[in-house]
Amino acid sequence: MRDYVEIGIGRQARRSYRLSQIGIVPSRRTRSSAEVDTTWHIDAYTFDIPVASHPTDALADPDFIIAMDRQGGLGVINAEGLWGRHRDLQAAYQEITKAAQRGEAIQTLQELHSAALDVDLLSERIRYVRDSGATVAVRVSPQNARELAPHVIKAGAEILFIQGTVISAEHVSRDGEPLNLKEFIGSLDIPVIAGGVSDYTTALHLMRSGAAGVIVGGGSHTNDLALGLESPMATAIADVAAARRDYLDETEGRYVHVIADGEIYTSGDVAKAIACGADAVILGEVLAPAQETPAEGWYWQAAAAHPRFPRGFVLASRALEISDQGCETVDRPSLAHILHGPSTQVWGGENIVGGLRRAMAKCGFTDLKRFQKVDLNIISDLS
Amino acid sequence: MRDYVEIGIGRQARRSYRLSQIGIVPSRRTRSSAEVDTTWHIDAYTFDIPVASHPTDALADPDFIIAMDRQGGLGVINAEGLWGRHRDLQAAYQEITKAAQRGEAIQTLQELHSAALDVDLLSERIRYVRDSGATVAVRVSPQNARELAPHVIKAGAEILFIQGTVISAEHVSRDGEPLNLKEFIGSLDIPVIAGGVSDYTTALHLMRSGAAGVIVGGGSHTNDLALGLESPMATAIADVAAARRDYLDETEGRYVHVIADGEIYTSGDVAKAIACGADAVILGEVLAPAQETPAEGWYWQAAAAHPRFPRGFVLASRALEISDQGCETVDRPSLAHILHGPSTQVWGGENIVGGLRRAMAKCGFTDLKRFQKVDLNIISDLS
Amino acid sequence: MRDYVEIGIGRQARRSYRLSQIGIVPSRRTRSSAEVDTTWHIDAYTFDIPVASHPTDALADPDFIIAMDRQGGLGVINAEGLWGRHRDLQAAYQEITKAAQRGEAIQTLQELHSAALDVDLLSERIRYVRDSGATVAVRVSPQNARELAPHVIKAGAEILFIQGTVISAEHVSRDGEPLNLKEFIGSLDIPVIAGGVSDYTTALHLMRSGAAGVIVGGGSHTNDLALGLESPMATAIADVAAARRDYLDETEGRYVHVIADGEIYTSGDVAKAIACGADAVILGEVLAPAQETPAEGWYWQAAAAHPRFPRGFVLASRALEISDQGCETVDRPSLAHILHGPSTQVWGGENIVGGLRRAMAKCGFTDLKRFQKVDLNIISDLS
Amino acid sequence: MRDYVEIGIGRQARRSYRLSQIGIVPSRRTRSSAEVDTTWHIDAYTFDIPVASHPTDALADPDFIIAMDRQGGLGVINAEGLWGRHRDLQAAYQEITKAAQRGEAIQTLQELHSAALDVDLLSERIRYVRDSGATVAVRVSPQNARELAPHVIKAGAEILFIQGTVISAEHVSRDGEPLNLKEFIGSLDIPVIAGGVSDYTTALHLMRSGAAGVIVGGGSHTNDLALGLESPMATAIADVAAARRDYLDETEGRYVHVIADGEIYTSGDVAKAIACGADAVILGEVLAPAQETPAEGWYWQAAAAHPRFPRGFVLASRALEISDQGCETVDRPSLAHILHGPSTQVWGGENIVGGLRRAMAKCGFTDLKRFQKVDLNIISDLS
Repeated sequence: MRDYVEIGIGRQARRSYRLSQIGIVPSRRTRSSAEVDTTWHIDAYTFDIPVASHPTDALADPDFIIAMDRQGGLGVINAEGLWGRHRDLQAAYQEITKAAQRGEAIQTLQELHSAALDVDLLSERIRYVRDSGATVAVRVSPQNARELAPHVIKAGAEILFIQGTVISAEHVSRDGEPLNLKEFIGSLDIPVIAGGVSDYTTALHLMRSGAAGVIVGGGSHTNDLALGLESPMATAIADVAAARRDYLDETEGRYVHVIADGEIYTSGDVAKAIACGADAVILGEVLAPAQETPAEGWYWQAAAAHPRFPRGFVLASRALEISDQGCETVDRPSLAHILHGPSTQVWGGENIVGGLRRAMAKCGFTDLKRFQKVDLNIISDLS
Repeated sequence: MRDYVEIGIGRQARRSYRLSQIGIVPSRRTRSSAEVDTTWHIDAYTFDIPVASHPTDALADPDFIIAMDRQGGLGVINAEGLWGRHRDLQAAYQEITKAAQRGEAIQTLQELHSAALDVDLLSERIRYVRDSGATVAVRVSPQNARELAPHVIKAGAEILFIQGTVISAEHVSRDGEPLNLKEFIGSLDIPVIAGGVSDYTTALHLMRSGAAGVIVGGGSHTNDLALGLESPMATAIADVAAARRDYLDETEGRYVHVIADGEIYTSGDVAKAIACGADAVILGEVLAPAQETPAEGWYWQAAAAHPRFPRGFVLASRALEISDQGCETVDRPSLAHILHGPSTQVWGGENIVGGLRRAMAKCGFTDLKRFQKVDLNIISDLS
Repeated sequence: MRDYVEIGIGRQARRSYRLSQIGIVPSRRTRSSAEVDTTWHIDAYTFDIPVASHPTDALADPDFIIAMDRQGGLGVINAEGLWGRHRDLQAAYQEITKAAQRGEAIQTLQELHSAALDVDLLSERIRYVRDSGATVAVRVSPQNARELAPHVIKAGAEILFIQGTVISAEHVSRDGEPLNLKEFIGSLDIPVIAGGVSDYTTALHLMRSGAAGVIVGGGSHTNDLALGLESPMATAIADVAAARRDYLDETEGRYVHVIADGEIYTSGDVAKAIACGADAVILGEVLAPAQETPAEGWYWQAAAAHPRFPRGFVLASRALEISDQGCETVDRPSLAHILHGPSTQVWGGENIVGGLRRAMAKCGFTDLKRFQKVDLNIISDLS
Repeated sequence: MRDYVEIGIGRQARRSYRLSQIGIVPSRRTRSSAEVDTTWHIDAYTFDIPVASHPTDALADPDFIIAMDRQGGLGVINAEGLWGRHRDLQAAYQEITKAAQRGEAIQTLQELHSAALDVDLLSERIRYVRDSGATVAVRVSPQNARELAPHVIKAGAEILFIQGTVISAEHVSRDGEPLNLKEFIGSLDIPVIAGGVSDYTTALHLMRSGAAGVIVGGGSHTNDLALGLESPMATAIADVAAARRDYLDETEGRYVHVIADGEIYTSGDVAKAIACGADAVILGEVLAPAQETPAEGWYWQAAAAHPRFPRGFVLASRALEISDQGCETVDRPSLAHILHGPSTQVWGGENIVGGLRRAMAKCGFTDLKRFQKVDLNIISDLS
């Protein structure tokens, strides 16, 4: 029973819920968090923690990807960002962080992304990551998937992310051939994780196209202002998890992973995303203070560089303190610190995985799959 | 089933929703935004984009109306504002912007509007716009419609807006003859767009009076504080669209346009208004930063000049930066830039039409009419 | 059908609504506001406007009461405030306003109210008002009603307000005789207006005790923080109006007035209170900027002076501007201006009665009684 | 009927309510607050007021515990805080308050808590309290209950609090023996109060384990951010009260006390907690300004010192004024003043018990038990 409301005569809308409107309810015997297993298996790959990084240059230069691997998670490379456009990455980052201090980062990002994509340069950098032994995941947009996928796979990509703010199994275009993901994924030898989606039907179609994982959420939190598209994450995750369940049934056993990318800012949000049905989460902003990131504490999403219609604020993470006197770096914890603690932040911004483990243990669960059934409250998201 | 609630014993109220409480849900095959058609046909007129400007002097001197036409939209002239009261318009605007910096704009607007309306001056200016080849739309109040309409039509008005904060098909008055819109509209040779209305019944009556379009919304966002009248726009648009449907049925084919004027601040809001059932939208505040506007980035609505009961704040748009040191102009994009991009604003304040096209394309729709059926979410309007 | 919800297992609470969560919906033929009649008849008294002032010294010295009468409303004297405790009223006000600037007004109010009540001084001042020809309404607390009523009536009170934050028809007390309002009101020769109440049952009992009017609302907006008692006004007014209806039926015609005292800050709130079922409203804070008030723009309610448990903030009205450099008087409109305009405030803080007239006219109503049936929306109280 | 909602396809959550979303409705004859009895009997102990203090060092050095007893309430000692780790308590507090002014209190708390627990030092201090004649309540964590309980009981503890943010009747652990509260409580000679819990089932199991009282609420208001666990208190208290009722029935008469620890910041919140079904409340932050507290107006909860996953902000209470020039002590009322008044705070921060008495009296109740049935409103928690 989806919960429909008549907003006006003859016009319905469905009630939907954000992660911030959901609370987890412990109602079983508590357990020790040492017993909790956070291992995430997808296709042939196993990760110690159910965490990938958002494919933004704000987080990821090549060394960050390697560091994510060392911490047990999955760093994701953006094939269409700075890596293949600027040989001197450091200079590019400096331009952005300087512009950000003047409040003009969007224009600078747009300019830097107007440089041509040098596939050789991109491949060289992907190969550097591959050579480190880290698992290599690369994100391409649906628009450029056909053109770029062969190059990034040749360079070493082991998992392909086909990720836009909103995608569907088939993209219709008057000019040029439509992208049919079923055919395209079928033609590849590596697993594909595709999204974002936010509803049951689109998710089911993506699953049928052969994706190993489906990304829930548009990523950018300014999509709602700029496009009016808004699918609160608690509802969206639960809907896509329902599609996973039905697809599992119709295929008699093919399990497609649900990966949440949106509204996740704290360890508590990670726990809530999984409690709503996600198998893994994508972290963005919360990783931005890490020493291992190249943007000195600034954060933006891939869509912020869009040439005609940018979305997503360029944000100063808590690593930065902005005042009239300028911009000061106040604290840059290590990635290990942010993911595994110990924490000195009371609001869930550090020891993210420790927080997830504690939440699960206090609710009496020791594995991620069962935790998807924990009791939930609806709460007013005003404290 | 309208959703009624008993707020107290024996007293009902109907649940209603703002645009900010609504989210659009993409659930079909995505399309290329190049395929989207935003043409708006009303009566004998065709516009490239479904956008009119709010009839306020804050936006419109004669050259702005021409600029709106060049950008594919419809600029609307306020017959009862400054145009016909002050030969030196520029001096009037300077008085207002200076007063606005002192926080005293309302009084200055009231004073400037106490000058007598010179119909010849007004006509001369309307003729100037007409001579440019731009489509000429002129707004009169219901109170003065009978007196002013012949003059503005003679001067070149091609579309008449009869717009007050709240109007009805018949206005009852003890002194003087009531305005019966059916008779009045029947006596005119040009199409009439009338409003604002916010409920099904009043809208249906307006449609029966012969209006070509009905404006939903009171325009001024301080009406709720000053009058207690508040009809959230998502519900109001859907209700008036229901009246359009029923009137279409009862007339076996007369289609009256629904034009939304309220709660629209971003490209996302434009998409939501159409998704709720609007055929076109009226933009106000979001156009105020444009270089082509005469008020140097300040914005107010027509009702702000009311002699005894002004409504609507005098606002500094993002073109202005107010500080203790005074008021500085920081950025004045062109109207083309605001309507068609490219944008450097991530929140939907530029490339308004591009945002609408993208929203439609991502939801798999290529024309405005079908987009009125897109799936909707109800969301908490707190992010 | 009251709308009950199970907040926890076996524990119910009733949904309730504030005035800010209600919107008035115009859905009839509009009318001219010149046709609106705002006359308020209660017992033998007739007022041009359905407005009384809150019985606080912050508003009322003797000349303010006379000024309210001149403006067509009813000023209410607090028998237990400063009038009977300090011969030099002006000095007392100066102490309070100086303390208010230091943020210590509560203590000063408590000290000033610890002075003994001189009934002769109080009577002298009441007589001064009576001699002006103004209607004399005096408020006593339920605790002191029996003792003070004879004195204030002898001094000229024509209407007695028995008003506390929460009262009931019978007050039970182990020590001393309980106050039975039925007996007490029966023993008086003048009409009594009693409250505050917020529920149907208490209101019905008050009506049966012979009150001519019942006050809805506790007045002080910090009651909820300090006592946990909170009855949102839209629901409370509608419930008490239901009691009025049932009492009218059971008495075959005795009409008890419902007077709203709470959540009323603008002309829009006045319209909403009447739309929910009130016959008249009590204004407080919104009158505080008036030149005719003695507290130089500061406002507090009677309960703010409570010796052990004060409630209600001491507020600087918009007449004052507080900065690091001190407190400056920026604007003091006349009472006539606040009540009858013309207004230069767009948010409903001036021309309060004009706003009510306009709201009624736009909804097509010409008298207060019928306006109690106007259509209502429930809205999210976040704009 | 618990109120379940489908947040996504096939995924339910239960609506729940905070104390701030609840209002108490007076609907009976009012009474004199002098008649109200606030006595709280639990096991063999009787307290004048239904109030315990949160077991945090921020409130409690030995003299504070004695002061709480003198005021009629119950001070609770944290066995695992500073008392047993630092002989020079004053020096420890000074380190914390200095660090708090630099915004680094969490780290300092973590360091100070990494010192070994000296059971003899702890016992010595407990004995000092016992010798004063005050009732001695000591809190241990579930993890250390088995080890510490014998020591604190030997030192004089008369009531044992077994309190963690979330506990259950049985804690499962792969390494080491699980803590079975039924066996453990059965082995003790003194009454046990255990928690926090937030749901019916866990509460019922705790009751069956022999606890004399059950604590509702996790205490720390940052749990929701860090763990995603959030159980709004109005619902949680009502659910646990339902467990109390059912356990009373199944045992034919064993009454387990429900003690609320969360969302209680004012006298109004105390009244609401009891109105939802609590027998007593735990106060934290609201006591922090008291002269008798050792942390000079700073407040934190026990969980703020957690070595790897701290929760709970370190807050400056209203006793402190923080500015660019530093931190100044502005007002430190006595504990007697905060609990019993007279108050000079209009928002319910002083005369807490007087506020409770007034709330009960105005609703017509004279004892705590019956007040648990008072009428309730659901309100929007935005004023």
